[in-house]
Amino acid sequence: MDLEDTLLMMPGPVPVAPRVLRAMSKPMINHRGAEFSAMYDDCCEILADVFRTKNDIFILSGSGTAAMEAAVGCTVGKDDVVIALENGKFGERFKDIAARYGKVNALENDWGSSFDLDEVEKKLEEGAKAITLVHNETSAGIQNPAKEIGRLAKKHDALFIMDGVTTLGGDTVQTDDWGVDIAVVGSQKCLAAPPGLSMISVSERAFEAMEKKESLPYYLDLKACRKSSKKSQTPYTPAIPLFFGLQEALHIVKEEGMEARIKRHATGARAIRAAADAMGIEMFPQLNKYSHYSNTVTAMRSPAGISSDDIKKDMIARGITIAGGQAHLKGKIFRIGSMGNVQPKDIILTIQELGVVLKNRGVISDIGAGVEAAGEVLDELL
Amino acid sequence: MDLEDTLLMMPGPVPVAPRVLRAMSKPMINHRGAEFSAMYDDCCEILADVFRTKNDIFILSGSGTAAMEAAVGCTVGKDDVVIALENGKFGERFKDIAARYGKVNALENDWGSSFDLDEVEKKLEEGAKAITLVHNETSAGIQNPAKEIGRLAKKHDALFIMDGVTTLGGDTVQTDDWGVDIAVVGSQKCLAAPPGLSMISVSERAFEAMEKKESLPYYLDLKACRKSSKKSQTPYTPAIPLFFGLQEALHIVKEEGMEARIKRHATGARAIRAAADAMGIEMFPQLNKYSHYSNTVTAMRSPAGISSDDIKKDMIARGITIAGGQAHLKGKIFRIGSMGNVQPKDIILTIQELGVVLKNRGVISDIGAGVEAAGEVLDELL
Repeated sequence: MDLEDTLLMMPGPVPVAPRVLRAMSKPMINHRGAEFSAMYDDCCEILADVFRTKNDIFILSGSGTAAMEAAVGCTVGKDDVVIALENGKFGERFKDIAARYGKVNALENDWGSSFDLDEVEKKLEEGAKAITLVHNETSAGIQNPAKEIGRLAKKHDALFIMDGVTTLGGDTVQTDDWGVDIAVVGSQKCLAAPPGLSMISVSERAFEAMEKKESLPYYLDLKACRKSSKKSQTPYTPAIPLFFGLQEALHIVKEEGMEARIKRHATGARAIRAAADAMGIEMFPQLNKYSHYSNTVTAMRSPAGISSDDIKKDMIARGITIAGGQAHLKGKIFRIGSMGNVQPKDIILTIQELGVVLKNRGVISDIGAGVEAAGEVLDELL
Repeated sequence: MDLEDTLLMMPGPVPVAPRVLRAMSKPMINHRGAEFSAMYDDCCEILADVFRTKNDIFILSGSGTAAMEAAVGCTVGKDDVVIALENGKFGERFKDIAARYGKVNALENDWGSSFDLDEVEKKLEEGAKAITLVHNETSAGIQNPAKEIGRLAKKHDALFIMDGVTTLGGDTVQTDDWGVDIAVVGSQKCLAAPPGLSMISVSERAFEAMEKKESLPYYLDLKACRKSSKKSQTPYTPAIPLFFGLQEALHIVKEEGMEARIKRHATGARAIRAAADAMGIEMFPQLNKYSHYSNTVTAMRSPAGISSDDIKKDMIARGITIAGGQAHLKGKIFRIGSMGNVQPKDIILTIQELGVVLKNRGVISDIGAGVEAAGEVLDELL
């Protein structure tokens, strides 16, 4: 029996509002007509507020990974050094992408552990064309110090390329103030649109770097994007239904307002941490003074003797999809996404069911402790 | 007043069936779950029949251009020669993509004119890693001799890369019989799904070529696609609503059956040509014995002294979107797409309105001649 009623509490794709779903069922339009252009401009205007930037913003018909590749592939040449900061799966992805276009000088931390800014600066002193950072490492539930690394990148004249895939639209990002040359976000995370689009902001300095490249990727050519965007178009056929959905999702963002949206996300994640603490579940990330727990996805260690795959399976049986660990973290951690339009009631239900699962597995005896702790935090939103 | 009721008679995006539109408004699912995998497999199975291939088929979250780049970017290295056959905008695009990855040896015809197979063979004798062909040159309404060029490519040991963007799903394509190593199609053309996805079939010989490449594009990495497809997944987050739409569109293809679908497309285009002839409108393509008029998009010369932009504008005012000419053909030709699920009644209406437009502009005196000629052909489908 498929009721299409599973609660997605993964770090994306996130639940999409009914009005966004309805928007996607509109008939096709000419992608070179005025109607599409008006929609494109409307989206970019709201995104400028989300990114807090005056830089150009483009909407790519491709996932967040496409935007990550556009960022690196358009700016980094084969003799250029990229400092790739890795403390999770997406930092690793940036490193892998960078290796296809240039020379990688990686800072590889254990996943979920914090970067030492002195080490980052030491790398930058060796000279680099660009430095890549995942602002919020979705795979490990840790928020990395984007502002501080932006300052260091500027000091050492490296392009600052930032994956804001699970912060933009749900957490504080100051693209211009932090000196982010290229910031990227996926549609299916904090913005609560369906997956398939990604948005990218590009600074003049980044465009200058493109002039020095012999050849750019074709589909992900940011210079072609810039040229087409002057006509409020995309260089190649856009994924029209996803634009319908994105526009509606961005209207929801605008109606809520970024300040309230950021507060809701931070409070939701804090509520989940409070619940975990009350149930004796440990956080996964290892923080230092520059890093934070993620405000959009909470990564927790699986209780001793229990695979997180089993917790995930038990939750799915109860109608709630959470995420396990990726790569070598499979079975060891589980992750609850609380991004997009996730409401307090969704968090309460998730914690309630997690309590039942943990009790059934003999981890806790008091189901109510988690919900009580989470509820206390969430009430701040009332 | 926007009734969302414009009839799209462009060469894509095409009108999408209401049941396809409804499918896209389903709630999000976990893209790593069983439901998504079942959908992925279902799509690939129907596509194998559309492509007539036993090769691997992958579904990319990106437009047809993305698939064109995947084909070239994954197989062609910087010292490899690509013979790019150009007689329209998309042949030019293949040439431009090839130039970013390898060395181009182009055969540049006037747009809309036919390839001389002797000239093609002469190019192949000079030696090449790959040859690119646009099967149906959408920009010029000409169908190029894919079967014959496939034979030549095989004889001279070049990979045959074919853009079937506006034939696959609506016209005869024999991927395996013709020796097409890589064939690509976009979702928003003959398959009548929304834009945003592309499908690509890849031969073993093409995979072998990838092994010799130092580095592949990342988002469009066909080796990564192959690895993920073994788990019925995509390497990166797929555009879920577009997959919902594609699956439904492919079910329609299956219900109609490829044979009937091909006949409907061929008959529709023939009806438009008959109408044009009856109204004294000239076809744009210059055929030779190996080329044909397109079965999916009809390109016509604008009547003397009239810009096709004006014809297009007049048609839009009457609720029907047709296409003008691209690049240097702007104003000179107009194009009527008859691909996807376009029905005889849509063609009749388009011809009727075109007749009115041409009469108003003083080109013809008898509005009925076009409709009568088209109707006679279309009645073969009854």
